[in-house]
Parts: sequence; C-alpha cells; structure tokens
Amino acid sequence: MSPSSLESLVEALRCLPGVGPKSAQRMAYYLLQRDREGAAQLAASLVTALSALRHCQRCNTLTEADVCERCASPRRDASLLCVVETPVDMNMMEQTLAYSGLYYVLMGRLSPLDGIGPRELALERVVARASGGEVREVILATNFTNEGEATAHYLSEHLSARGVRVTRIARGVPVGGELEYVDSGTLAQAFRERRSLA
Amino acid sequence: MSPSSLESLVEALRCLPGVGPKSAQRMAYYLLQRDREGAAQLAASLVTALSALRHCQRCNTLTEADVCERCASPRRDASLLCVVETPVDMNMMEQTLAYSGLYYVLMGRLSPLDGIGPRELALERVVARASGGEVREVILATNFTNEGEATAHYLSEHLSARGVRVTRIARGVPVGGELEYVDSGTLAQAFRERRSLA
Repeated sequence: MSPSSLESLVEALRCLPGVGPKSAQRMAYYLLQRDREGAAQLAASLVTALSALRHCQRCNTLTEADVCERCASPRRDASLLCVVETPVDMNMMEQTLAYSGLYYVLMGRLSPLDGIGPRELALERVVARASGGEVREVILATNFTNEGEATAHYLSEHLSARGVRVTRIARGVPVGGELEYVDSGTLAQAFRERRSLA
Repeated sequence: MSPSSLESLVEALRCLPGVGPKSAQRMAYYLLQRDREGAAQLAASLVTALSALRHCQRCNTLTEADVCERCASPRRDASLLCVVETPVDMNMMEQTLAYSGLYYVLMGRLSPLDGIGPRELALERVVARASGGEVREVILATNFTNEGEATAHYLSEHLSARGVRVTRIARGVPVGGELEYVDSGTLAQAFRERRSLA
C-alpha cells in the first residue's frame, strides 16, 4: 500500500553502494520527512555532475574539462607517471606532497570475478601513454590487495616489454609501526625488501 | 583539485542519514564510474517523490492523494485508532494481519534533545482526531524506547483527560522466546503484566 513514487525512490536509492532495502527505506523517509531541501539539492547535484563530469583525456580521472588541471599544469614533472586505481588514491598521493609527476587513474582494478579484465580497464591506454617517449619512469601505486597486485603485475610485464622503466611503491613496516604489532606477512616482506644504508 | 560539480555531489550525498565524508566520496565515484543510469534514475525519483508525496490529511502518513488508500477504505474499522511513530512501523503492524482499524502516524517521537516537543509532532492533531467521537479506542504502538514511552505517556495523559479509552500494546517475552535468554527488564515486565488464564 506504499505510494508508487515512494516505492520508486526506495528502489532508486538502492543503486548506492552498501545500501540495502532497509537503509533505502530509512533514507527515503528521512529525506521526505526531515530534509526535503537536501533531497532537492541531491537531485540537482546528480544531474549537474552527470552532465558536467567526464574522463580526463590524459590521466582518465573525472574532470569538467577535456584535460584536468593537474595534467595541464606546466609545473608537474611529465617524465614521471604514477598509476593508481581511483581518484581517491590519487588524492592520498597528493596529500603526501612527496610527488610532483603526473598520474594515470585506472578507475578500477583487474577483477576477473567481476568481469573486469585488461580490456574493460583499457590497460592498453596506459601502455600507449607510458611508451610515448616523454615518460621516463612508471610508478605502480595500485593497492597491495590480490587484485591490485595482479593489476601491477600485468602492467609491469607489458611496460617492461616496451622498454619502459617500471617501479612499485614500497611495502614494509608503516611509519611509527612497532614490530610486535605488525602482521607477519608485512614483516616478511620488509625483511625480504631490506635496503642497504649509505 | 576536485572539479566543483564532483565536490557538490559529495557534499549533497552527505544529507543521507548515516553517510559521512568517506562514504559520500565512495558513492559519488561509484555512481559516476559504474552506474550513471542508476544515478539519473535516483535524481528523477527524488524530484518525483518530492513533488508527488504529501501527508495524508487523516493519518499523516506519506501519500500521493489528499487522503491515503487505507484511510479512504470503507473496510477498515474507524472506531480503532493505532498510533505509530513511522510509516515503517505501520507496515509492520499491517503485516501481522491482526489489526483492521485505522492509524495515525506521528512521523517521529518526542525527543527534547533534538528539539522535538509536542508542538513539533503536532500531538494536538492526534488528540483532536481521537476525541472526534468516531474513535472508540486509541492503541498506542510507539516504540518501547525511552522516547517512544515518553510519547505514549504524553498521549495517554491527554487522551484520558478527554475521556478517550487508551491502550498500549503488550510488553513481554517474545513468541518463541526462552526465559534463559530474555533480558531481565523484559522478564520483570512480563511478570508484572501477567494475565489470568480463563
């Protein structure tokens, strides 16, 4: 006996990641009862974002222009290309203030179970971009999950075959980490990948 | 360096209950990258729901007409009025198939800390509706939380003063419940509110 526009809204809210039928219902009632202004704002923002945002032609992140501000900036070092999975990861890298090169955002990771292979991620675009001549080093900064590692492995194979220098960000004990509380997998890696001092 | 329409969308998604900055960001990227159709559908559903849904003039639930289907139905017993906090609670009551009277949906509960008092809930409307002559019994089915109990107490006082018969749904051991696993507060209530058998 729910009105159909309410039912449609509950159904539509379920497209959000992590939102099931109960949460969707709670959200719908909340918006209609307590925050109609917010709901109207959300609808407008969705419409604007859908029409305004597209992928940067160079780094593939979401942008409102053909080429994003970062790629267009003359102050970035175009000989370094850092490959990350998502725009959020790119923001995390930027916050370190330790990197001034360019990025390529995969917008995902290899995940055969979800039907995401090299073609779906358009990995040939990364390879083409990196072997264009300008790039001196590709830094793989995908996650250290199975899928992130698989993606890094795939890219590393294909880039090396073209003579591009490929590196991977370091695994190891986190800054401030105490050995007692670090998991043994990480510790084993930190041991294997130890580096010589001076 | 995020495009402004992306930032607006992330900000707008935070109006949803239980969604903080991290989830909002994840939702925005998910919608733009993986479910643009769902996002467009969500925007449209929000706009439709906001314009189509209003409060039923009789029971205060959300409806597309002036009076909701349930209130307009001649098959419901108009001498019984069940007061619930939300439309979800009303649906729960309906699913029991144990009640054929009408409802009044408060769309909230007394909650002084959130600034929700008798005036904000328009409790005088419930009292006016219940003492109109047609209603023989008001069944209070607010939650058994502190706030729900306070709401029930307030309504009970004001309705009794007008000579309306007021009842409260029963507290006790749940069906299928084993005494060993029931909390002692519930058990104490079940003991106090024991009823004589035949």
